[in-house]
Amino acid sequence: MERTVTTETIDVTLEDARRAAHTLQGVAHRTPLLPLSRLSDELGVAVYAKPENLQRTGSFKFRGAYNRISALSPQERARGIITYSSGNHAQGVACAAALAGARAVVVMPEDAIPAKVRGTQEYGAQVLYCGLSSTERQVEAERLAAHHGYVIVPPFDDPMIVAGQATVGLEITADLPDVATVLVPIGGGGLSSGVAMAVKETAPTAQVVGVEPETSADAQQSLRAGHIVDLPGGETVADGLRARHIGALNFRLFQRYIDEIVTVSEASILDTVAYLHHQVKLVVEPSGAVTVAALRSAALPRATLRGPVVVILSGGNVDPALLCRLLVPPE
Amino acid sequence: MERTVTTETIDVTLEDARRAAHTLQGVAHRTPLLPLSRLSDELGVAVYAKPENLQRTGSFKFRGAYNRISALSPQERARGIITYSSGNHAQGVACAAALAGARAVVVMPEDAIPAKVRGTQEYGAQVLYCGLSSTERQVEAERLAAHHGYVIVPPFDDPMIVAGQATVGLEITADLPDVATVLVPIGGGGLSSGVAMAVKETAPTAQVVGVEPETSADAQQSLRAGHIVDLPGGETVADGLRARHIGALNFRLFQRYIDEIVTVSEASILDTVAYLHHQVKLVVEPSGAVTVAALRSAALPRATLRGPVVVILSGGNVDPALLCRLLVPPE
Repeated sequence: MERTVTTETIDVTLEDARRAAHTLQGVAHRTPLLPLSRLSDELGVAVYAKPENLQRTGSFKFRGAYNRISALSPQERARGIITYSSGNHAQGVACAAALAGARAVVVMPEDAIPAKVRGTQEYGAQVLYCGLSSTERQVEAERLAAHHGYVIVPPFDDPMIVAGQATVGLEITADLPDVATVLVPIGGGGLSSGVAMAVKETAPTAQVVGVEPETSADAQQSLRAGHIVDLPGGETVADGLRARHIGALNFRLFQRYIDEIVTVSEASILDTVAYLHHQVKLVVEPSGAVTVAALRSAALPRATLRGPVVVILSGGNVDPALLCRLLVPPE
Repeated sequence: MERTVTTETIDVTLEDARRAAHTLQGVAHRTPLLPLSRLSDELGVAVYAKPENLQRTGSFKFRGAYNRISALSPQERARGIITYSSGNHAQGVACAAALAGARAVVVMPEDAIPAKVRGTQEYGAQVLYCGLSSTERQVEAERLAAHHGYVIVPPFDDPMIVAGQATVGLEITADLPDVATVLVPIGGGGLSSGVAMAVKETAPTAQVVGVEPETSADAQQSLRAGHIVDLPGGETVADGLRARHIGALNFRLFQRYIDEIVTVSEASILDTVAYLHHQVKLVVEPSGAVTVAALRSAALPRATLRGPVVVILSGGNVDPALLCRLLVPPE
């Protein structure tokens, strides 16, 4: 039977997101909306940031990870969980596992940012290194899971993960019911598909716009092609958005809920990381800055931009060496 | 007649603070309370940050400046205003003057942090340099005011300025009515005296603790001596807390409303700036970090610390070169 996208076959619903919000209450931070007054003045519409860099573990990833892990049985927690990640999901899983009393193993790329590795280890997780691509890490994690009986906590292509990330969208429309435009970074699609569903289901007139690096625009191509496009080798400074393709679940939600996907240049991303530091006083990593980069670079035509706008800053785990090259350029 | 501190002689009242809050509504950012979960876990009490680094112009100074300038007559605005500042008050005044349609002149020290000078000029203020001490700047500003007819907007020793800064305290007790301890940085005393008044008048059982650098502990000595102590030459990396003595108005409010003043070392301040960057993802300047430094260094005995605790992060205008020496130590 051919699969068609109808309400019946949407794998993650508003009800799932609301259950996740209940699970996360008092555990995840309920991040505020912060007015970006200078950017608002420049654009002529009210712009607010949803600062998930201020979330536990420095990114939204904690939400989905905790939602998934808290649903495990005591037996599963005792066996332990395993995941594969370039960094932020690793820290989210490590922290969530510690809070839920589960042992955690994380397979990270050999070139992982040292700060993200340290962050993961500080929460008590065991870090193993494997290759450079997300595919290599996933294969290794599946091998170890089969061998040791670990439960796999995938980064994005999982209903409980998506429901957890969707709580970001619920909070946006609860705090700003008349929000007109929500900008969200797209990596594997966990945050973006969850937020798009939650925003559209609670504020149907709002536009949800995904943002990707120009060099890693697999989601934009997938949405245009009508099927998931695999785009290997996209090099971008936004290390959290390097996934070579989005998940199948995430793609189905995209087709139903995402209005548009725009792209931003590497230079624009880096300039915006410095801008957010200097002007807004927030530490934001390149992956988290793409939404503000889209506004500042006019990747979205200003003439048609409807406010109020919410830009999701997805994380703050930036490499200090990279940040300082931006803040204090070498002579 | 000898002056005694009674309700009648308190120069800034809760009513003044409430009027200031009304004036600032929709103009200043209403900063949120952010949970500091790791620090809370370590200390065993709930700790929240009041991030005034996210305020317009990157510090609380905008509040008092706008409250003062918005009370000027059209004639006074046309003549223009003048102030003297090491940086944050300068930016607050420059931005407030621009919003209120007043011309602004700012006398800054010759060693002012370039980022703070640029920030001031970007709001359209004229910057003049004079000496290194706050006294030199003040004398020059008074001379220019007499000559050109400018209205002086002083940094801290002024009822309208104190009432504006007091709105930080009103927001804290409104958002967290059962707050038990509030930590506030002490420079000239504008923020600390206003916050202490507002907190104690709205949450009488809360403790208000001021924090100063060890090397610039004039307020602590003043409170102990029972009169304002002048402490020249205190060198500290917390450039916003270098005032050699607090104001007369501020001291009267201290005597009535501040419970205790503690001090922190230079090393502890710098370490905390890096900690807030790495762990909390906030850009905080040394002056703004002293409150968290006091908690982390146990300047306040942990055994007697009552929660929930609110730490005011007063500003985020840190010199990028200094910050990067902390984040990426030279080899």
